[in-house]
Amino acid sequence: MEKETERIEAFSDGVFAISVTLLVLELHIPEVKDGNTYTHLLEQLKLQWPGYIAFVISFFSIFIIWVNHHKVFKQIYKRNTGLMFANGLILFLVSLVSFPSALLARFFLTDSKQLSVTIYTGLFVLINLAFNLLWQQATSDKKLLRPGISDAAIRQLRNNYLYGFPTYLAAFVVSFFYPDLALSICVLLWVFWAASSKKINFTETPAL
Amino acid sequence: MEKETERIEAFSDGVFAISVTLLVLELHIPEVKDGNTYTHLLEQLKLQWPGYIAFVISFFSIFIIWVNHHKVFKQIYKRNTGLMFANGLILFLVSLVSFPSALLARFFLTDSKQLSVTIYTGLFVLINLAFNLLWQQATSDKKLLRPGISDAAIRQLRNNYLYGFPTYLAAFVVSFFYPDLALSICVLLWVFWAASSKKINFTETPAL
Amino acid sequence: MEKETERIEAFSDGVFAISVTLLVLELHIPEVKDGNTYTHLLEQLKLQWPGYIAFVISFFSIFIIWVNHHKVFKQIYKRNTGLMFANGLILFLVSLVSFPSALLARFFLTDSKQLSVTIYTGLFVLINLAFNLLWQQATSDKKLLRPGISDAAIRQLRNNYLYGFPTYLAAFVVSFFYPDLALSICVLLWVFWAASSKKINFTETPAL
Amino acid sequence: MEKETERIEAFSDGVFAISVTLLVLELHIPEVKDGNTYTHLLEQLKLQWPGYIAFVISFFSIFIIWVNHHKVFKQIYKRNTGLMFANGLILFLVSLVSFPSALLARFFLTDSKQLSVTIYTGLFVLINLAFNLLWQQATSDKKLLRPGISDAAIRQLRNNYLYGFPTYLAAFVVSFFYPDLALSICVLLWVFWAASSKKINFTETPAL
Repeated sequence: MEKETERIEAFSDGVFAISVTLLVLELHIPEVKDGNTYTHLLEQLKLQWPGYIAFVISFFSIFIIWVNHHKVFKQIYKRNTGLMFANGLILFLVSLVSFPSALLARFFLTDSKQLSVTIYTGLFVLINLAFNLLWQQATSDKKLLRPGISDAAIRQLRNNYLYGFPTYLAAFVVSFFYPDLALSICVLLWVFWAASSKKINFTETPAL
Repeated sequence: MEKETERIEAFSDGVFAISVTLLVLELHIPEVKDGNTYTHLLEQLKLQWPGYIAFVISFFSIFIIWVNHHKVFKQIYKRNTGLMFANGLILFLVSLVSFPSALLARFFLTDSKQLSVTIYTGLFVLINLAFNLLWQQATSDKKLLRPGISDAAIRQLRNNYLYGFPTYLAAFVVSFFYPDLALSICVLLWVFWAASSKKINFTETPAL
Repeated sequence: MEKETERIEAFSDGVFAISVTLLVLELHIPEVKDGNTYTHLLEQLKLQWPGYIAFVISFFSIFIIWVNHHKVFKQIYKRNTGLMFANGLILFLVSLVSFPSALLARFFLTDSKQLSVTIYTGLFVLINLAFNLLWQQATSDKKLLRPGISDAAIRQLRNNYLYGFPTYLAAFVVSFFYPDLALSICVLLWVFWAASSKKINFTETPAL
Repeated sequence: MEKETERIEAFSDGVFAISVTLLVLELHIPEVKDGNTYTHLLEQLKLQWPGYIAFVISFFSIFIIWVNHHKVFKQIYKRNTGLMFANGLILFLVSLVSFPSALLARFFLTDSKQLSVTIYTGLFVLINLAFNLLWQQATSDKKLLRPGISDAAIRQLRNNYLYGFPTYLAAFVVSFFYPDLALSICVLLWVFWAASSKKINFTETPAL
């Protein structure tokens, strides 16, 4: 049975790859100043530390979203309009990540730190919702899925996103009071996904 | 029968994906100012609202153009020079979208609002013309098309673009007098295309 | 016989697609000024006309280089180190195009017009040389080529680039004295290539 | 046996292609000044020479990393979590290259020259480590590799990266004292890799 979704995956890969690579443009090259010394450049680079943190978190967040996208589309063989637009919504939100990421980098050391973290974690809540929408569209018509996919695999993928949702929501709510904790939750979710990604692989194998 | 157009589609996907992802660079990060407060950043972000509207309209317009490009190239199996250059013209115009989109964002709250909307809608008229040219090139020699494609499917695809043309032209003309209405027409056209995209899928299926 | 060059083509397509899409970043959005009027924005956009010309010439030049790259790699089935690095050289020079293109846009109305055109046309001379190097590497070992390729097809592809070389060299030399004429030669070469691309397609077909 | 890593390669190609193409954005277009003359633009372009050097070294360094990535993934047929994240680490570091590259361009003629070269060479040490990690992950479970791969080929690929490591480390250490020498070592390593890439091709062929 022919897989109809190859060009969707290619286009999505393009958007993911560009979104992740454009992040580096938010790191600023310090200006050369007269009397610039070794220590001076080092100091200026150190002052940018929130930018590095935003870069690392955003890069690996998008990377993990791509890994999940990859995993979901391995199970999708046909497309319909709902699926196309759920995927479009994911790509829209992912292409947007560099904006709140740059806000975070610039305002982390200001009075607006809390607001920048709230916007940042809020975007990931939306991305998670869009993923739930995608999987809901894909499973609403079983003809769209890989022939022979087990109900257990369908459940496991859905659970994966459903479990992500309260976590991102928690990060969002916490961001209003403890922005640092909220960012830590985002990072912890990677560890969870990196660990759980092994389990899902396991579920896929027996279905082959 | 071998499909000759794979690398054209891959290249086009690249241009679409980059065009859509570069749009985010037009959103500006507010400057940090001394005495910057929570409210201050929020105010500055709110002032940028035409930028968000331009970003959303441009993103989904390019996304729908990509969906249509995808749909058309599923029916094209061979290429000729005319096809290559009609496609090149589409890509040229799509890669240009971020420019009038940024104009719109920056001048929507100024005296030049009308001009920026006119340029913006005018570009989509040209993209629609380029699509008509592509489909006309593809159907001018039936050997270029998918073997066994029905005349009904050919007509339907052509009608899809022909119907789009007067709508975009209307948006362009209206933009001289009622810029807000012109933008609304562009958004309405998505809804039409999202709805009609289901119909086209249906036409494709029986031809398999 | 397996085609070994698919990932080279995918990577090259990526570089071509990005190079061509980044060109739009060289078009500048006029600043909003107090008392900005309809006429004012129009005036500012008109002042940028060398930027539009540079954008159009650079876009279609890279596009035609991509068409040619596509055509050449259809005949290449295996790779060796020389081929990889000749291709790397082409990509390096293509990724560079936006720099002299931006120079041209900015300095076309200044005393440095001639220099900017000379640098611009000089880059295309180098790209043409790199293409000749690629084809020379590919034909140096006939095992790299598509099985069953005719000697006539090999000659025709080589001639295509050899003919391009004196034309670009002429544009480069002419640029020192008549910059406008030099740019016109570059544009004429597209017409030649668009026309000759039909002929090459014809040569390929009987070889199938 | 199906190759499971195609979408990983497509995504990676995207990141490599964008990283390499974004480098050109670090070349600055001189400002137009009143009384700007032919000589003036030429002078300004000449002043940017460290930028050209950084561009050339960074472009071909990423290109060679891509060539090696290509070569390694030709031998990898299955993926696991470790592999996905080792690859993610490589992409993270590669997407970062344009930042130290721009630092190098801007600070090469200042007191901070040494620091900028140290950061630059340090990044390549990390990329080399990430490659060693990738290959170690791939070979930790022989089921991930191309069926029928010879132990000699596995050893040769590993040695290729192991040999690269002390060289990049040497460049890093040397950069503290002789920055120019450190950059020269990076360039020499290309020559080594270009030469050794021929040898590896040879090893692959008998394994077919």
